[in-house]
Parts: sequence; structure tokens; C-alpha cells
Amino acid sequence: MPQADEVQNDASTRLAVSTVIFALRPDHTGRPVLWTPLVRRTREPQLGLWALPGGWLPPNEELEAAAARTLRLTTDLAPKYLEQLYTFGEVDRSPGGRVVSVVYWALVQSDEAARAAVGPNVRWVPADTLPGLAFDHNRIVDYALWRLRTKVEYAEIAHAFLGETFTLAELREVYEAVLQRPLDPANFRRTLLASGTLRETGERLAGAPHRPPKLYRYDSSARTAEAREPFTRERPAS
Amino acid sequence: MPQADEVQNDASTRLAVSTVIFALRPDHTGRPVLWTPLVRRTREPQLGLWALPGGWLPPNEELEAAAARTLRLTTDLAPKYLEQLYTFGEVDRSPGGRVVSVVYWALVQSDEAARAAVGPNVRWVPADTLPGLAFDHNRIVDYALWRLRTKVEYAEIAHAFLGETFTLAELREVYEAVLQRPLDPANFRRTLLASGTLRETGERLAGAPHRPPKLYRYDSSARTAEAREPFTRERPAS
Repeated sequence: MPQADEVQNDASTRLAVSTVIFALRPDHTGRPVLWTPLVRRTREPQLGLWALPGGWLPPNEELEAAAARTLRLTTDLAPKYLEQLYTFGEVDRSPGGRVVSVVYWALVQSDEAARAAVGPNVRWVPADTLPGLAFDHNRIVDYALWRLRTKVEYAEIAHAFLGETFTLAELREVYEAVLQRPLDPANFRRTLLASGTLRETGERLAGAPHRPPKLYRYDSSARTAEAREPFTRERPAS
Repeated sequence: MPQADEVQNDASTRLAVSTVIFALRPDHTGRPVLWTPLVRRTREPQLGLWALPGGWLPPNEELEAAAARTLRLTTDLAPKYLEQLYTFGEVDRSPGGRVVSVVYWALVQSDEAARAAVGPNVRWVPADTLPGLAFDHNRIVDYALWRLRTKVEYAEIAHAFLGETFTLAELREVYEAVLQRPLDPANFRRTLLASGTLRETGERLAGAPHRPPKLYRYDSSARTAEAREPFTRERPAS
């Protein structure tokens, strides 16, 4: 049987990393929606077009470190964690020769997004109404949005947007922004409390007048156990 | 603000594809367990060690096509679909210079696995008791097993192992093999039927004596709707 590696790699394919960042920020009506930062290209190919933050992979830098460095360099953002999203490698995705891009994604809190760099070559745009981006970056953002919207660990995602503690109303705002539709408050409360992924902190929102709402935190242990144990009762392994 | 792509890629990093295949096959006691095919390396580095099927990414071949081609070439397998699993790119994962591997995975049915090539340089091994593999391939298989075991779409996975129609007992065998523990048949039946992802075919297992069991099929539409609609009742977007 022939060995597959008799086909040689001529090293003409280059490797890059890019990152899709989402944060919840108000749109022009004040309603929170998903925003993402873009960076203007200052060299060919596709000079002047907006693109995802990213850059080449240096030979001695780990993938995630390269994603974090290029993100910090261009947008000043340093998300607590980056997660690998997908690798995009279509033969003709870049006009300057084949580039395979390992794409990371992260969710950042609104206050971190508000502190991030802006300038003539960096701007935040609503993720659902992007301009035409460089390369296949529109497709990459669309894929990231799809993953965000179909991901089951909603409470975990909300946690990444909101921080340690949050009210149920804040949590519902996140869901409404991600799913792009209003949700019934009573049903939302019932579903989330039944999910077992929220814990009461015993505290209430500071500064709220008359009956301040309870603060919750995300319980990652509950989620993990649920994902791994779909059957509540097992036959003893006698 | 500096542009991240001022750091140049010197093209010394090479790109490869590899594939993790799982199939259910009986172990030495006849119990179905997860097996995976391995290929013996016939060149340096790590000559003689067992490795995942794979090879270099040619400059003009799409990632998935390269994964499919190298898989077919080494094991004769042609799974209906390959799914991208993860990209492994640690700086020191290969002793012969940096290699970034885009890893795909697939589940194949037992009969396809039984028809696949074997020989002095290809063999199937139980995925949970692997020998020491080349490079970081043990870690890659462990990651694939973890993803398989935590994936929520169990019925979809079972479908990939079993084919179009199956009995509840066959489905339970898949779950038991994937989760590595026995499951209570009555509770299993209740949970799966309540999940909304199975449809009765109206047929029964052929050739079974006295009360042949019902045949089911996987309903992908139900699963997709469920994944996207965690809240059953919404407030009208008036």
C-alpha cells in the first residue's frame, strides 16, 4: 500500500491566524446587539479593506499565542480565553497565494470592548450587518455567528459576555441579542432555573430601588455533568 | 497602530492533514467497542511507529479532499462525510520541523470497517487501549474520544455507526460502547423516545423469531429544531 506522504508539500502554502471577537453593545436604538472589531488592511493584497484581526504564524509561536498577540497588537483586546473555531483553507481564498487560516474566537464583556483600541484602522461594527470584508472573512464571521447561535451551552456563553454575576434580566438580554428575537420573561426564567446551570449568589443587584433583582452565577460543574450523563439512572455494573 | 502582518511567515512550517476514524467492532469477548485504524510509518521521522492515516497538504488540494484522499490511499475507507475536528500545531510536536496538522474525523459503519484494507502496515486497534503512536497522535485520538463522548447529538452519532434503520437494542449498544458502561434498557428506551429524535419506520427487524423488535430511524429535523429553539414559547414580536 502506498504511503500518503509520498505527495510532497512544497511549503508554498502559508499559515495565518485570525480571531473573531463578539461583544454585546447597544445599537443606535439602545438595544444590545453583537458587535465585532475589524482592522483595516494597510498592505496588499486587498489594501484598504476591513478584515478580522490576525497575522502570519511565526515558526516558533504557538497558534493560540499568535492569535492573542495579533489581537492585542491590533485591537488592544486580551480576552481571558480564546477558543479555536475552525481552520479555513480553501485553495483560492486569498489572491496572493494559498493561505490556511486557523481561526480563533472569543467573547468579551461590554466594558472590555468599550476600553479597546479604536482609530482610523480599527473599528467595531454590528456583526449581522458587516460591510464586504477582505478574503473570505464575511463567511468566517457568518460561521462564528452560526456556532454561537447553535451552541447549547447558552449559560456559559452568557457568562462570558456578562462576567461573574448577573440578573436574569441581564441574562435574557444576552439571549435576545444572540438569538435576535424577544423571549417571554416568565418562560425564560422557568427554563433557565430548570437547566441546573445557574446558582443564586445570595446577593441582589446593588443600587436598584425597591425589590432589587437577585444575582446569579454560572455553575460550570452542572453543565459538564449534564453533558456527560444523559441517563439519570443506570443499571449497576454488577 | 502596527499591523500584525509585519511579522513575516518564512514558510518553514508545513501543513498536513490526518483523520481519526471510529467504528464499532467486537472486542475479544464479543462486546462492541470503538476501534480506529492506524498506519505504520515507512519513513523518518518516527519510522516504524503507528500513526493516524494522513499526509502532506498539496498546494492545490482542498483540506477535506486531502483528508479523504490520504485516508482512501492508506486504509481504503471512504466515509460519507468527514468533519473537521481540530488543528494541532504545537511548535515541537514533530521532530522533523514544525508541522501544523488539520485533523478530520469520521464514524464508519461496522460493515465498511470490516471491508477496509488491512496488511502489515495498516491495522485496527481498540481506541481506548492504543499503543504509543507517532508524534502527538495519542493526544489527538484522546481528544476525538472526548469530543465523541461529550457530543450531545447522540442519536446522530448512533445513526452514523448503524446506518439508516436500527432497533433500540442496537442503539443502546452504541451508547454503551461510546460511554463504556451498561445502561438500563427501560430508562434508555424512555429517554430516547422522549428526545424526539427517533421516528418509527413502521417495520420490524427481519428474521427475528417471536415479537421482532421495531425499527427506528434518526430524525435530523427534530434535532436541529431542538438545538436552535431552547425556549418553547415566545412572546410574539408584536
